[in-house]
Order: sequence, then structure tokens, then C-alpha cells
Amino acid sequence: MNYAELLQKRRAIRDFLDQEVPLPLVEEILRDATLAPSASNNQPCRFVVVQCRKAIKNLSDESKACLLRDHNDGKIALNPTYVSLLADENFNVFYNAPSLIFVAGPKSVGSLDVDAALAAGYIMFAAAARGLGTCWVALGANIRDPKLRGELGLSENLRIVAPILLGYPTAIPAAPERHAPEILRVIAQAR
Amino acid sequence: MNYAELLQKRRAIRDFLDQEVPLPLVEEILRDATLAPSASNNQPCRFVVVQCRKAIKNLSDESKACLLRDHNDGKIALNPTYVSLLADENFNVFYNAPSLIFVAGPKSVGSLDVDAALAAGYIMFAAAARGLGTCWVALGANIRDPKLRGELGLSENLRIVAPILLGYPTAIPAAPERHAPEILRVIAQAR
Repeated sequence: MNYAELLQKRRAIRDFLDQEVPLPLVEEILRDATLAPSASNNQPCRFVVVQCRKAIKNLSDESKACLLRDHNDGKIALNPTYVSLLADENFNVFYNAPSLIFVAGPKSVGSLDVDAALAAGYIMFAAAARGLGTCWVALGANIRDPKLRGELGLSENLRIVAPILLGYPTAIPAAPERHAPEILRVIAQAR
Repeated sequence: MNYAELLQKRRAIRDFLDQEVPLPLVEEILRDATLAPSASNNQPCRFVVVQCRKAIKNLSDESKACLLRDHNDGKIALNPTYVSLLADENFNVFYNAPSLIFVAGPKSVGSLDVDAALAAGYIMFAAAARGLGTCWVALGANIRDPKLRGELGLSENLRIVAPILLGYPTAIPAAPERHAPEILRVIAQAR
């Protein structure tokens, strides 16, 4: 697939066909993601692949509960739309996707957010290049239950940055409107 | 350019031909970058384009001085290699690139780091697709002098996340070795 086409096909996908994603394909995508740049080529990202819809639903429930608890405890201030969405037990933050990838890494790495975001960008392009759809769902990152974290191999020193849905899209919607790039200044060449 | 080729061509480039990058090409690249996903499609990124080598050198000097000051004040702990590099007045953190793009955004946006990193990833791919080379140089992000910030249109509420070199590469080096993706767990489909 050429780059111009890829740019159009990499869209946030939340509606998936009832079709599993073969694990070797997920592994290919993650191999592509290792080519993402990272600060000092430190390559801090770790991945968790969840291919089981029931496990994905459990993770959605955990993340929703943690977010609502933080909101109720005044640690974060969610907007009211999110509060009612998170309180709805039928709402799956992972939209019943067949696969989920967590991009995580050591909390001690200062550049973890940007390193993981770059890797996530590569995952999203790598998936789109293979006819798959993705969506970064930040609401799904709050997995704190020690048992669940243990099952995912997420030791205490690791932080999830990017939960990414993965599956075959029912459709590829047009990009929502983008404003023109906001270029604050152009400092021209001295003559 | 197809995606597989693009994956190989997007490398960190620090050696550039003595050839300017036409501004319309930079604008094209930034238009591509607006297609990057952002949290809640908030599109918080702002861009500054510096096409003047003298201005770029001044920005390098400012960022180096700020980093060294932070180090000497004990606010950050740079490793000794970086300290001597930053103290070397001939070292330009921007490697004498003909162009420099700052990706910045409002400090108030909680997801700014990841939003800007995704946009930066798009910039790096968009440049590679056009035969240009880029490098994210984190050492160049520390621009604090109010006069310099004013010239760049960077008001106090904005933070630079990604300084990206841009120019025509003298060569495209092979990717430095990457380790295999560290997959902590695969949770398989329930049968």
C-alpha cells in the first residue's frame, strides 16, 4: 500500500467484523513497531496482546471502575458524558474488538509517553497497511487490579500508555474534519 | 512510496545536503501531519518552521545553555557525555540542518505529549515519503528566552514537545539493530 493511501486508510475504527486476527499477523505488526524511533534508541516498549473477547471485556470493566473511582474520589474530573458512559455496564471501552494491544513500558523512562506514542503510531500504520483497523482508547489504560496485571505480565514498574483496538473494520470512515496546520511562525532563510 | 519501503527509509538523519527545503513542501508535510489521531480529535498541535540556519544555531545555543543551567542547578542529571557535548560551543544540537520544525501545544492539554508524538511520527513519515530526512532532537526543546520565544510565536502557555530536523539526507543509513518485540503475554482466545 502506498503512503498516500495509507494516510487515508489509517482511521479510528470502532466497528469490527466478527473475525479473529491471526496471532502471526499481530506479531508482524509488532515487529514493524520496533522500527519506531525512541529516545537514544532505548526501545523501552513492552507489549501485551489480548485475543480473548471475554478477557477484553474484563479489562474494560476494570478500567472503567478505576476511572469512576478516581472521579468519585476527586482525583480526576471527568466530564459528565464520560461519567454516564463509564457507569453504563453495557459500554465496553474496547468496543468488542477481537484483539487488543497494550503498549507499556517502565515508569522510570522519562520519555516513555512519546516513545510509546511513536510505537503506537507505527502499530496503527502497520495494521492499516494490512487491511486492519485500530483505535487508541485512552479510557482503557487504567488496569490496577494486581491479579489482572499479573495475568498480563504487567509488573508494578510498568505503565500502560496506549491501549489499541485491533480488528477487521466493517468500514473505513472518512477522516473527521481537520483544521489546517496551525503554523505559528515561519522564520525564513536569511538572504 | 509503499509502506514497506517507507518503514526502511524513515531513519534518524543528521547529515544533510547543502540544499534548502522549499516551504511549500514543509507545508505539505504539516498538512499530512494534521491527519494524525489525537485524543478526542482535539488537534492540539501548533507548529513553528525555522528555515534559517543562523536562527537554528541560535536556538541550539539557547537550548544547550538552558539544559546546562538546569544540570548545574541540580534540576536535572545529565550524563557526563551530554554535559561535555553541550559545553562544546561547536556542537549544534540541530546538526546544521537546513530546516527545523517545532511541534508544540498548550501545556493545559493532558495528552499533549502523546498527541504531539503522533503528529511528529506523521511528519517523519511524510518527510521520508518525499525523500527528506528527519530527526527528533529532544536536546533542542529547551527554548525559554522570552525574546526568542516571541519570535517563534511561542506564548507562555505553549510547550515544545518535538523539535524535528528536516533536510535532504546525504545518505539513508541502515536501521540500528532492534530487538524483537517484547511481548509480555498473549492472552489467547477462549475455546
